[in-house]
Amino acid sequence: MISGNPIDRILKNRVGWLADSGPDDDIAISSRIRLARNLAGHKFPPCAEPAEHSSVVVILRDVCEALPAFSEDFFVRLDELSQLDRRVLMERRVVSRDFVSKQTPSALVMTADESASVMINEEDHMRLQCILSGLRLGEIWERISETDDLLSEHIAFAYDEELGFLTSCPTNIGTGMRASVMLHLPGLVLSEQINQMKQAIGKLGLAVRGIFGEGTDNVGNLYQISNQSTLGESEQQIIEKLDTVIKQIIFHEKSCRMKMLERSRNFLMNHVGRAYGVLKHAYIISSQEALNSLSALRLGVDMGMFSSLDIHTVNELFVLVQPGHLQKNAGKQIENATERDVLRAALIREKLKSVRTDKG
Amino acid sequence: MISGNPIDRILKNRVGWLADSGPDDDIAISSRIRLARNLAGHKFPPCAEPAEHSSVVVILRDVCEALPAFSEDFFVRLDELSQLDRRVLMERRVVSRDFVSKQTPSALVMTADESASVMINEEDHMRLQCILSGLRLGEIWERISETDDLLSEHIAFAYDEELGFLTSCPTNIGTGMRASVMLHLPGLVLSEQINQMKQAIGKLGLAVRGIFGEGTDNVGNLYQISNQSTLGESEQQIIEKLDTVIKQIIFHEKSCRMKMLERSRNFLMNHVGRAYGVLKHAYIISSQEALNSLSALRLGVDMGMFSSLDIHTVNELFVLVQPGHLQKNAGKQIENATERDVLRAALIREKLKSVRTDKG
Repeated sequence: MISGNPIDRILKNRVGWLADSGPDDDIAISSRIRLARNLAGHKFPPCAEPAEHSSVVVILRDVCEALPAFSEDFFVRLDELSQLDRRVLMERRVVSRDFVSKQTPSALVMTADESASVMINEEDHMRLQCILSGLRLGEIWERISETDDLLSEHIAFAYDEELGFLTSCPTNIGTGMRASVMLHLPGLVLSEQINQMKQAIGKLGLAVRGIFGEGTDNVGNLYQISNQSTLGESEQQIIEKLDTVIKQIIFHEKSCRMKMLERSRNFLMNHVGRAYGVLKHAYIISSQEALNSLSALRLGVDMGMFSSLDIHTVNELFVLVQPGHLQKNAGKQIENATERDVLRAALIREKLKSVRTDKG
Repeated sequence: MISGNPIDRILKNRVGWLADSGPDDDIAISSRIRLARNLAGHKFPPCAEPAEHSSVVVILRDVCEALPAFSEDFFVRLDELSQLDRRVLMERRVVSRDFVSKQTPSALVMTADESASVMINEEDHMRLQCILSGLRLGEIWERISETDDLLSEHIAFAYDEELGFLTSCPTNIGTGMRASVMLHLPGLVLSEQINQMKQAIGKLGLAVRGIFGEGTDNVGNLYQISNQSTLGESEQQIIEKLDTVIKQIIFHEKSCRMKMLERSRNFLMNHVGRAYGVLKHAYIISSQEALNSLSALRLGVDMGMFSSLDIHTVNELFVLVQPGHLQKNAGKQIENATERDVLRAALIREKLKSVRTDKG
């Protein structure tokens, strides 16, 4: 297990779960499962004193070091990370938004490819995470439950025979599992069917959220679909249901795209072309405009309009254009938003330098 | 003198006064002088009967045929032209907006390069026009007054010893001359100095107008500066004053551009780059957006950002993207605005196909 600030090292890598290919990854960018676990006999993080937080970090560090999944990877205490580094990890979806602002002793364990990680002392003692590209909930479940089983050999989890795993927030009690898939749904958005889809998903007991935090519902046309409930169903049941619904959404998204291509070809080409033109030639671009334009570009790549552009480059740009990554790349804190907008535009121009449009 | 519909032939040519080079044509796109003249002993067009209109057309046709300036060129009766052809001529600045909608017998005489023309039975019996690229009021005055002198050998003009030339509208009495220069002023607009400039020009007794008709003040950042008054000053005095003011405006425009390049380079590059990106990759574009984007592109060309693009190509696009030219090019009337917007975008993409940006 390597200690120390991992951020500078991982920033040199592409984001593993974005650079890889996976099933249905034209629409399902990534799948993720998080498990909430707590140690029996220890106060849960929201009620614990700093000394207890610290001792939990030490216990869990030792346990994680013993696991094959993390044997050669990173352990880092959150207080050793700058606010910027924390933000970078959040933008890479390794840690939660809440974890970024933690003041109490907390830590992070993660693999070098970022596919597996454990937040120690987030809302619960442990939040195990596994994330992979494409729609791969089954595979992820196998991986994460193997780690969970191994952990349970070393740790007594807070567990109730009737309720299941006990968690700080009652919404996680039971399986403690949150499975989610990040979907790129420009077709449903452009053909104004997204609200209907969201309502239908809500009725099935699943949640739909924008991926860039509160109030970012439509940014980049990226949506995260996840289970709402952790009680009364097994993990496999939850995953199977989510998987089935996601496959239906993917089917609808594809059919929206085909319909637009047939019936509103110019509208679609215009939408993609303008976004591409702006990304390739702007010198100042906000985060929101960049994410929305990248969404249109990704749609264009998927529809075969840019044979010289790899969809994973676009996926990666979704991460790289965010404020944390921009500043980390520049090697300094940049408070001025316009200055960030200039850097963002330069980064995008550079990444798209060799891209050409195919003949329409 | 060749009779018949000249429009199909001239559309094959580039617009002469836009394709040529001329002094200061980076900012002064073209200069134009119009002279209003009427025949003595004939009712002025607004008061005349159709029979009189017709006889004036015949008289003036014979006179024009005898002039060297028009000896090998076009004569066309307005009623032989479709509404679309008239519009095309207006977009090429050969005829006035009022002339397009004339119902009474009227005609047009013009040279093949479109630099000289006579509207017969517009508001006055004759509106002589000469238009050339760049700032060339002196040269134009020489040409048009030579034609005017020759005409006066064959025609008795309505003339009053005290007032000068008599015209239908009292605002033209005296010299009957309207001299104007079309200026491209994106620098003054972007640095928000245009209104100050317009006020100053107004105080000097000159008029500033957008070039695409009423309420198009800012479209394309193209402005026409002209003399307001036709009484109390000689033609040379009017032209000298206009020339002096135009040279000052050009100086201000250039200094605005240099200041922006020094102090707001990213703002400027962004403005030009985005416009270029949209023009090059849009599949639907309105006339107004096209003109505004072309304005930004023209600024970029002038500032050396596009060595592979000739400024005259941009000048010409200002004409070609307008609705009349688009429809004439397509060979049919197109009532549907979106259909025109699609054609417009395709035309622009084609014209800019081989253009590349220089390294910023």
